Amino acid sequence: MRRRGMGRLVVVPVAVVAFVGVVVGIAPPSGQADDEGAQIFLDKIPAGYRDWKLISVAHEEGNLHDIRAILGNDIAIKAYREGKLPFPEGAIIAAVHWQHLASDENNKIFGRSQSFVAGPPTSVQFMVKDSRKYAATGGWGFGHFEGRDENKPGAKPLLQTCFPCHNAIKARDLVFTRYAP
Amino acid sequence: MRRRGMGRLVVVPVAVVAFVGVVVGIAPPSGQADDEGAQIFLDKIPAGYRDWKLISVAHEEGNLHDIRAILGNDIAIKAYREGKLPFPEGAIIAAVHWQHLASDENNKIFGRSQSFVAGPPTSVQFMVKDSRKYAATGGWGFGHFEGRDENKPGAKPLLQTCFPCHNAIKARDLVFTRYAP
Repeated sequence: MRRRGMGRLVVVPVAVVAFVGVVVGIAPPSGQADDEGAQIFLDKIPAGYRDWKLISVAHEEGNLHDIRAILGNDIAIKAYREGKLPFPEGAIIAAVHWQHLASDENNKIFGRSQSFVAGPPTSVQFMVKDSRKYAATGGWGFGHFEGRDENKPGAKPLLQTCFPCHNAIKARDLVFTRYAP
Repeated sequence: MRRRGMGRLVVVPVAVVAFVGVVVGIAPPSGQADDEGAQIFLDKIPAGYRDWKLISVAHEEGNLHDIRAILGNDIAIKAYREGKLPFPEGAIIAAVHWQHLASDENNKIFGRSQSFVAGPPTSVQFMVKDSRKYAATGGWGFGHFEGRDENKPGAKPLLQTCFPCHNAIKARDLVFTRYAP
């Protein structure tokens, strides 16, 4: 359960203390919180996400080597368009990833090698805003599923990397993606 | 009304001849059709396109150097998902383009240079299926607008390149983009 080494152990208990402190006004005994138990990850794919409106697009090189669309449910899109931060309860953001694939078909027609398209699906990831349920991770529940398959959630060590990284962009409520007009 | 120069004056009469030829079963006199004049281009941005569902994403290097989302109205999305070709009347496909921009913000947090995001808008392009109106261009009307500005349509020489290029992908009804699941 503690695969990621001692460096991680300090992070989450502090978040838990903060949450419980807020709700009942008392801190739990020091050292009681289980830092892994405090993080709750999505075990379901939010329904209908593929029909959601577009927030933006992006391309990650390196190991990810993907091209991606970031979609939002209506609550998220409204907040984006109105520039509202933090995101309201119920906002969900989906990052839909595909292999970044050179298109031989397009390049042949265009007469030059310049075209990259969405290849096979890689993963789909979600952030769900629920400040109580996901209090330990900044009010966001994180999810990762291989392909588009609810039965293939990301491994826990992977999921545990979501919050610390997103937490670096606190000024935008842990959301990297900006709305693309 | 004729702000776009003499080049426009030829457009509509010839399109009418071609159309009448189809309807009443007679071909126009050989050599009469002006292959440039026969083309009708969009002069309006289809309403609400930014709310449409996602078909796919792509990235073009070279002079375009963009990252793009391809969106479809409900008619287009339904046809895509059902695998129907040719696309039905009323289908509209939007290609929304942004500069392909390295994200210093993301790279700094990720600790490596790998992240590209949607930069400032470049152009937005449309294909509108109307087999009668756009008979001269394979049943599709093509449009190009700089930024997202209806008052900045593409120049005619640019627009005239749409059909010949798209016509190379006749097997998919002139549409390059495949649906990305």
